[in-house]
Amino acid sequence: MLPPAPQGAIECDALVIGAGPVGLFQVFQLGLQDIRAHVVDALPQAGGQCIELYADKPIYDIPAVQVCTGRELVQRLLQQLAPFAPQFHLGQEVASLALRDDGRFDLGTSAGTRFIARTVFIAGGVGAFQARLLKVEGAERHAGRQLLYRVPAAAAWSGRRVLVVGGEDAAVQAVLQLAAAPPPQPASITLLHRRRTLAAEPAPLQRLLALIAAGSVHFEVGQVLGLDGDDAQGLVAAQVIGEDGQTRRLAADLVLAFLGVSPKLGPIAQWGLALERRQLVVDPAHFETSQPGIYAVGDVVTYPGKKKLILCGFHEATLAAFAAAARLRPDQPTLLQYTTTSPRLHQLLGVATPGR
Amino acid sequence: MLPPAPQGAIECDALVIGAGPVGLFQVFQLGLQDIRAHVVDALPQAGGQCIELYADKPIYDIPAVQVCTGRELVQRLLQQLAPFAPQFHLGQEVASLALRDDGRFDLGTSAGTRFIARTVFIAGGVGAFQARLLKVEGAERHAGRQLLYRVPAAAAWSGRRVLVVGGEDAAVQAVLQLAAAPPPQPASITLLHRRRTLAAEPAPLQRLLALIAAGSVHFEVGQVLGLDGDDAQGLVAAQVIGEDGQTRRLAADLVLAFLGVSPKLGPIAQWGLALERRQLVVDPAHFETSQPGIYAVGDVVTYPGKKKLILCGFHEATLAAFAAAARLRPDQPTLLQYTTTSPRLHQLLGVATPGR
Repeated sequence: MLPPAPQGAIECDALVIGAGPVGLFQVFQLGLQDIRAHVVDALPQAGGQCIELYADKPIYDIPAVQVCTGRELVQRLLQQLAPFAPQFHLGQEVASLALRDDGRFDLGTSAGTRFIARTVFIAGGVGAFQARLLKVEGAERHAGRQLLYRVPAAAAWSGRRVLVVGGEDAAVQAVLQLAAAPPPQPASITLLHRRRTLAAEPAPLQRLLALIAAGSVHFEVGQVLGLDGDDAQGLVAAQVIGEDGQTRRLAADLVLAFLGVSPKLGPIAQWGLALERRQLVVDPAHFETSQPGIYAVGDVVTYPGKKKLILCGFHEATLAAFAAAARLRPDQPTLLQYTTTSPRLHQLLGVATPGR
Repeated sequence: MLPPAPQGAIECDALVIGAGPVGLFQVFQLGLQDIRAHVVDALPQAGGQCIELYADKPIYDIPAVQVCTGRELVQRLLQQLAPFAPQFHLGQEVASLALRDDGRFDLGTSAGTRFIARTVFIAGGVGAFQARLLKVEGAERHAGRQLLYRVPAAAAWSGRRVLVVGGEDAAVQAVLQLAAAPPPQPASITLLHRRRTLAAEPAPLQRLLALIAAGSVHFEVGQVLGLDGDDAQGLVAAQVIGEDGQTRRLAADLVLAFLGVSPKLGPIAQWGLALERRQLVVDPAHFETSQPGIYAVGDVVTYPGKKKLILCGFHEATLAAFAAAARLRPDQPTLLQYTTTSPRLHQLLGVATPGR
């Protein structure tokens, strides 16, 4: 019998860290082995790099898919894994991992979710995506209070002069959210971007342009050079350099910066797993790390010949699922069955087995 | 300088043996490395097992393709590799392979096509598909003369009593071809199948049924037990056991048997490459066989952890293409480029590079 779980911890056979394309296919392959998975990702949605870095850009080397965008690839993978209905825990990072006495793993996320998992799959890609920080004078002093990298609760901006920095989807969405909020609204909303061109989805962009035309939102072209204000008075203004090379001062009580995201390997590097140049070392037969029961797949791993290609990650996830099935069910043979012919796999996939 | 090629031999950088899904993706990955390929396959069309064994059956585990039939998978792969326009040499088997003094390989096919290739990729699957033979008394004596596994030229059947054995597409097509031939037609056409149900495409099946109804083709249910006739008189009849368990004699001058195909590893086993249980041994970093310059991918290979899945073959073909690029261009670095961002790959694929 297993020792009791700490209160509130989710017990599971498999925890997949990373909801990028390889993590998603890991869930599918685990499903074919009749192993259900929970999935954690730092981003608020599934897709990883495919969504963060090339959502609308074409990919040409997914086998048998002549061309698809990053977003389409993620949609296809989500559709494929739907029969296995994994539980997603998004917007949180796995912060801690420890081996338990019973051979399972204790994991905790930045949002306080706790897991006890029999197997762990690190599909960490290039790392957890984190907001790129504003690196200017005064930024550190105000960070977490009047300089934020997300839209806070209404109390933080009601009646305040808000400066939103950025020119892509996240910045545009933040402005729209503030402008559409019920009263008390911000005293003013200014969008500051380093160039005149905004790179966002057409529909929200159009709504933003209407707000700018109506005077509800101010749009400025320039870059933040520094944040003014000491500990006593708090943030009072941003120093901004404009297109004309002139520096001016924009009064602001709150700066919301959306400068894109950058990946950080983060806590994974602290778990005592064998690393080689910040990649997890795996054996290419099972894609197991130096810790039995912890597998790793995709861009986060290294092995002889490794290429950081999505299609290679698909293969890695498949072999890891076979290895995990052997670990979780040591008394049962791991059979290679084909989705075309196996009634067992058809049952798992929820599809009919065609007659002869 | 390379020694001159034997007259008529095709000189190429890469020869892919096998036009199944993995062989086709091998061509694509070689294309991304700017290496053009020739492809040889024993079957008359591309697709290998996907076409021979499950053309119309669903496959569920191709990554990002929720479901497709074998035929659809092949169509998708052909579409994807189209920019690299490989030259196909179908309906022929690579019969011989020898290392030349200049480090290249001499290859010859069963149809007499000759190649001098700098690299060879064996994507042989479970082997070359060959007609399943009629194994009954007398079959060996008449094989190649009055027992054939294809429709011969008209001289062989004009005015003869032809017995077609089989009940799938190939048998039905053969009957239709004979029945539609200009005079002098066969004296009679009989289709013999072991059961009453024919498994063929609807349109040809309907034409066959019309011919049977019109009396132009006789249909019999039964199995061949033996072929009568000695060397002097040749084939005179087939001994057939019917549904009723009774044996009878069907007069016949020519038997055309279409009993399906079965794979044979064939000549590949004779090339001196390291084998393990009739699989080619490869290293999983480069998918090179024991002979440098000869790579092997897909179901024909073995390495620790190997699973015979199409998606694993895609990974193997990719790494083999990288290894071949390093071999063919030892003075150039092999870069990992992404189809999403690389103008070089866009040029090779014949697609536009999107602006920022």
